[in-house]
Amino acid sequence: MAIQTVLTEKLGISAPVLLAPMAGVSGGKLAAAVTNAGGLGFIGGGYCDPDWIAKEMKEAGNTRVGVGFITWALERNPDVLNRVIDQQPKAIFLSFGELGSFAAPVKRANLPLIAQVQSVEQARRAAGEGADVIIAQGTEAGGHGSMRATMPLVPAVVDAVGDIPVVAAGGIADGRGLAAALMLGAAGVLCGTAFVVADESLAHPNIKKDAVAGNGDATTRGSLFDIARGIDWPEQWTIRTLTNDFTRQWVNDLDGLGRNLTQEQARYAKARDAGDTSISAIIVGEGIDLVRVQQPADAIMNAMIAQAEELLRRGPAFSTSGR
Amino acid sequence: MAIQTVLTEKLGISAPVLLAPMAGVSGGKLAAAVTNAGGLGFIGGGYCDPDWIAKEMKEAGNTRVGVGFITWALERNPDVLNRVIDQQPKAIFLSFGELGSFAAPVKRANLPLIAQVQSVEQARRAAGEGADVIIAQGTEAGGHGSMRATMPLVPAVVDAVGDIPVVAAGGIADGRGLAAALMLGAAGVLCGTAFVVADESLAHPNIKKDAVAGNGDATTRGSLFDIARGIDWPEQWTIRTLTNDFTRQWVNDLDGLGRNLTQEQARYAKARDAGDTSISAIIVGEGIDLVRVQQPADAIMNAMIAQAEELLRRGPAFSTSGR
Repeated sequence: MAIQTVLTEKLGISAPVLLAPMAGVSGGKLAAAVTNAGGLGFIGGGYCDPDWIAKEMKEAGNTRVGVGFITWALERNPDVLNRVIDQQPKAIFLSFGELGSFAAPVKRANLPLIAQVQSVEQARRAAGEGADVIIAQGTEAGGHGSMRATMPLVPAVVDAVGDIPVVAAGGIADGRGLAAALMLGAAGVLCGTAFVVADESLAHPNIKKDAVAGNGDATTRGSLFDIARGIDWPEQWTIRTLTNDFTRQWVNDLDGLGRNLTQEQARYAKARDAGDTSISAIIVGEGIDLVRVQQPADAIMNAMIAQAEELLRRGPAFSTSGR
Repeated sequence: MAIQTVLTEKLGISAPVLLAPMAGVSGGKLAAAVTNAGGLGFIGGGYCDPDWIAKEMKEAGNTRVGVGFITWALERNPDVLNRVIDQQPKAIFLSFGELGSFAAPVKRANLPLIAQVQSVEQARRAAGEGADVIIAQGTEAGGHGSMRATMPLVPAVVDAVGDIPVVAAGGIADGRGLAAALMLGAAGVLCGTAFVVADESLAHPNIKKDAVAGNGDATTRGSLFDIARGIDWPEQWTIRTLTNDFTRQWVNDLDGLGRNLTQEQARYAKARDAGDTSISAIIVGEGIDLVRVQQPADAIMNAMIAQAEELLRRGPAFSTSGR
């Protein structure tokens, strides 16, 4: 099975599916499994702990994987980029901030520079700053993101950035989403939610259990869980999670949370360590409706590609012109 | 040109494109133009003014068109439904409320009952209440809507409602969106933003001018313009508009607007009548990036269908299996 696009050619892969570099979830084993299944896996470098990243790159073994960073976090720890580049990742993925001075070292190392954006304006800037691939991420994505939605964002970004391959992210968790993204003009997809539940994912077993039972109507995007975790995210980006008891308690009372912050942050940290998902964030996107089973990453990939191929093959049958 | 789906069969049309019943914008001429171009037009019955609806149904002439209502408004004027049914519309479209007691008269008249929903849960309810077609509307849509996004909502609704044809709405304004929607499992699309700028649309010329120059990054969804117009929409539905001076002045100060309500509502009404779009709502969705020219509705339809057909024909070329 294979689907060919300008993205697969550019990255030398056989399926246009990228693993989202989910912080703390996309470790070396998951990234390697996605690469081995024909896509490209990214380790979730997130908040830039160099030791964790080095450990996970070792877990990936000889399978080449990329590494993703939260750009504003990398700005606080800029040396981490060079340390990772020295370990020969397959590509560097940056999201949530300007490429700025990070583009040059990635280019010097001859690595694909993959920039995730959340608006057409950001896409234009990333194109101007040298992005080799632009990921257009819709608000329906799990975890951090912004306000534009995937369906109209992707074609608008395609129109805005010329020949640079565009990858669709947000709300895509099966072959229907992959085939749809290709119709929108994307050269591939980036999936997070689909792989949170993979056997190789580092997500807590209770998170995986809640995710496969989860309901896309019941996710919310906001700053609640960043406050609970004490992470000072810039306000333009918020985090989408599945509603749980902690959401219900505080989502409409952030002032109250602020007044009880020390106590609630301690309670949150304890719950996270214990895998208590009534409090701990279940970080998934609206596509969770489409994710109904825990299985190995290669089974997820194979099902997605097979379904997309079948839909794409059926494409001409919709048209009755010339019949 | 034609694209065939279960929707086109069910409604006896040649292209799976429905005109959104935009209140005050989708009049008889626009609805007829969309029907004549192969789709199905809907008059925007909106807040249920029976005289306006009757006038616009006459404007549609012999071309059969449907009529759409805001369901909670119809609950306050239930007699309007029977008056419209007597005028032999092609279908009845209900959105923003439970089908409830409105399903029976539509069924008795043997008209297709088209229910627009904004969540999977609402879709299940509409299926149970007898909807013949379910429209899954994403948050990126212009005008009133809710929080779920089109890309993940559509396949989840398809999975939830069995054999009932599902139509995708929100963020779809060209052939790429139409082809993508079919891949998601939809049997067609509903478009509003694409047709706001049509020659036949009743939108003010200044709205059309601002729309074709508009930027999808610059739309917002909220209750601001309902407050300015004095319409008491239930809070689960908000209105997406293009940001203008009035948005910038009040969007982060609804309390301030409340304190100046009488004066600001008067200022708003005056601006709307004068076509002053610095104040008056420019009701378009995120798909506005894809709408760059004012033209007749049939030109919009033809371009959309031709582009979708070409993409669908190219579908098999993505797959390299068996090469």
